Amino acid sequence: MVENFSEWFHDILEEANITDSRYPIKGMAVWMPYGFQIRRNTTDLVKEIYDRDHDEVLFPLLIPEAELAKEGLHVKGFEDEVYWVTHGGQTPLNEKLALRPTSETSIYPMYALWIRSHIDLPIKYYQIVNTFRYETKHTRPLIRVREITTFKEAHTAHATKEEADEEVEKHIAKYKEIFDTLGIPYTLSKRPEWDKFPGADYTMAFDAIMPDGKTLQIGTIHNLGQTFAKTFDITFEDKDGEHKLVYQTCAGLSDRVIASAIGVHGDEKGLCLPPEISPNQITIIPILFKKGKEEVLAKCNQLKKEFEDAGLRVNIDDRDIRPGKKFYDWELKGTPIKLELGPRDLENNKTIVMRRDELEKIELDLDENLVNNICNLINQYEENLSKCAWNFHDEHVKFASSIDEVKELIENGNVVAVNWCGDTDCGQKIEELTGYSVLGIYEELEKGSKKCIISDEDAKYVALIAKTY
Amino acid sequence: MVENFSEWFHDILEEANITDSRYPIKGMAVWMPYGFQIRRNTTDLVKEIYDRDHDEVLFPLLIPEAELAKEGLHVKGFEDEVYWVTHGGQTPLNEKLALRPTSETSIYPMYALWIRSHIDLPIKYYQIVNTFRYETKHTRPLIRVREITTFKEAHTAHATKEEADEEVEKHIAKYKEIFDTLGIPYTLSKRPEWDKFPGADYTMAFDAIMPDGKTLQIGTIHNLGQTFAKTFDITFEDKDGEHKLVYQTCAGLSDRVIASAIGVHGDEKGLCLPPEISPNQITIIPILFKKGKEEVLAKCNQLKKEFEDAGLRVNIDDRDIRPGKKFYDWELKGTPIKLELGPRDLENNKTIVMRRDELEKIELDLDENLVNNICNLINQYEENLSKCAWNFHDEHVKFASSIDEVKELIENGNVVAVNWCGDTDCGQKIEELTGYSVLGIYEELEKGSKKCIISDEDAKYVALIAKTY
Repeated sequence: MVENFSEWFHDILEEANITDSRYPIKGMAVWMPYGFQIRRNTTDLVKEIYDRDHDEVLFPLLIPEAELAKEGLHVKGFEDEVYWVTHGGQTPLNEKLALRPTSETSIYPMYALWIRSHIDLPIKYYQIVNTFRYETKHTRPLIRVREITTFKEAHTAHATKEEADEEVEKHIAKYKEIFDTLGIPYTLSKRPEWDKFPGADYTMAFDAIMPDGKTLQIGTIHNLGQTFAKTFDITFEDKDGEHKLVYQTCAGLSDRVIASAIGVHGDEKGLCLPPEISPNQITIIPILFKKGKEEVLAKCNQLKKEFEDAGLRVNIDDRDIRPGKKFYDWELKGTPIKLELGPRDLENNKTIVMRRDELEKIELDLDENLVNNICNLINQYEENLSKCAWNFHDEHVKFASSIDEVKELIENGNVVAVNWCGDTDCGQKIEELTGYSVLGIYEELEKGSKKCIISDEDAKYVALIAKTY
Repeated sequence: MVENFSEWFHDILEEANITDSRYPIKGMAVWMPYGFQIRRNTTDLVKEIYDRDHDEVLFPLLIPEAELAKEGLHVKGFEDEVYWVTHGGQTPLNEKLALRPTSETSIYPMYALWIRSHIDLPIKYYQIVNTFRYETKHTRPLIRVREITTFKEAHTAHATKEEADEEVEKHIAKYKEIFDTLGIPYTLSKRPEWDKFPGADYTMAFDAIMPDGKTLQIGTIHNLGQTFAKTFDITFEDKDGEHKLVYQTCAGLSDRVIASAIGVHGDEKGLCLPPEISPNQITIIPILFKKGKEEVLAKCNQLKKEFEDAGLRVNIDDRDIRPGKKFYDWELKGTPIKLELGPRDLENNKTIVMRRDELEKIELDLDENLVNNICNLINQYEENLSKCAWNFHDEHVKFASSIDEVKELIENGNVVAVNWCGDTDCGQKIEELTGYSVLGIYEELEKGSKKCIISDEDAKYVALIAKTY
């Protein structure tokens, strides 16, 4: 799978009924029923975590050109990839309207209206929406698309710089919780100046390493400082009666969370879905013969109910096809636990279950411990998914002390750490000489302990270099 | 409120933190946190009902011009109100892309790919998406908007006409369940030929009567016959080996479900929200003095937990403001039950509760029956909302036997039933002479029992005439 991850990923999305890319616009795909359930469960997880201290809201899709253009740095970063609505019916519009590429310029004019006093702060809103980028590069479902169907963007405003800095840490903790729940390993780095979010003071980014060694940016958090506050005049009256600009943060997640969950856990047989987002956590496969059919189905339904009462998502595959085909299908679709039950099992009060990761047959008693035993298997499966993924991740972050070594390691599917003085010139030189990207600052170094890979100056940081999606 | 419903509706949306219309594009508003929770609960209700026999999917927002234009009747109905994307960045697109006004032409080309054999049928998918109409009329939040933020559209395909006809009845049953759950009274009528969905064989529509007597179309169900199947070549191989066209239905609901729930139940003090969609079903208002403050808050938290354990949504308003202001706010925001608790109540083991509809103080014991007693009050409130709304509705559907009477009754805030022969000429004459709309066929009449209000021919139907939103 390492060699042909790209092909594997493309095929699995169609075969497992996740997305269909035959929609007649490049870079825009249909979420199919099975994929939509994964999306819904993932969205529920994100909502559950953000609902704790944010309010969900919903802003319009369209942004007037004048608003989008207000923040110069920001618009420069997006102007080449904005879709423009120019007509309503046959009528040319007075002002062009952008399909939001991201919503700062849609949300912040309203923040300027809503925020009056320090008692209105902090304000912490998020929305989950579709956003648009006119991608000219090769598109790839869930990874590089023209319609991002599931963009979670949080936008906060604070009275002080300290609170905004703290909020960045809180976003980071939330993202870690989301990725950890799905067993997705990541590097967290501070993007270099030339790759930060347009308009941000700085950008913190999570990257996951795909099986082919390329990294996928799966979440970003931006400390916006007062840049947008100045542009959109977002001020408040402080306790001391003074009018001050707010400090802001924003943080985004997309369909790539699902892409990475699929990518890091899948194998040659198909998906291995994290239980949290798998449409079914248990798939029951009845083995049916003419004799004893009713009894087996009745027992399957009874088990389904017991599992559901324990809070699990369960389906019974009672299609009139060979059991072997059913096993194949649910391995492809990545159900964590398959449970098989035939008339002889029922007689012996046994059932055969199988974890999707190990695919070994486990015989369990059909007694009152079954629900508990299955829950334990799900937990073991979940832990093992995470452990294997982190092992792969850790094995693929390697240190290099020369440019040639960087190139060789990346060509062999690794992400590479190097010592860097922090100068933009040196950083861009690394990109130029290797042909790969500086993900960002991974660690700070003690003063004077190391030399920069390029300049021979003292290295301030460990930077990560990677081939990126 | 009857006299100035329009103003009341406009004000309540802003005052109750439902939507903010100051967004800088006409007809596009922001869903605020409180409104968003109502929207989420409403969407959950719709999903719960549709999930029983439909699969949720998600199609792209944009539709290539060629697809939109394929079905001639359909595009004619929408071409004046379609927003067009013409540019990606600075680049003119090869083909204009429409913001979906509705998704038949986005979904059905894919149905043509997916449906091969009778075993693929029926197919029943739905999505909840934003859709767009370039409205040139006066816009009004949730009622007449340019971005419909919450469009639930179901699309089914069947092997036989009978199954499609049955599916129409199933959609109707689902819509009734949704409206009944929210206590929203409705008329169900078959839209006249000249007002059916562009491309449909016929359209069934639900209308609610607003306090000013104008009707709001709150749900539509279309039997599409084989029109789109022909256009998009959606065929299947039947058991007999023949290739046949499918029969289709579609059904839509929008933000107007929320608009009608607000409209039919509200009063001069604000919202009266149906418990099913109210963000909080109980609002606890602690009456705090320096003395006993801790004990009162502790008890409020304990009650909150008990109510939540019983499956209720509860908030405690512990803001540092006068209790009177809190009562005012939650009456405005329409929480079904307010519960007030002060130190003296705690001493006497009592609490004062109030139903939002009747606003009478009810003293309840703080004992193990409290949760039950509150649940009963919520049920009584819910039933009373529905009963009052249906009473209003039934009182405002009146029969007229002359055009003058029709006009007078509608001017006085009624929906009017008339006998009609069924001819399009007569129907359009009714609209011309009254200046109002024929909603559609409400009932069939026995042959020869009545005369048409226009033509003196035998009346076949009772038709409804109304002033519409």
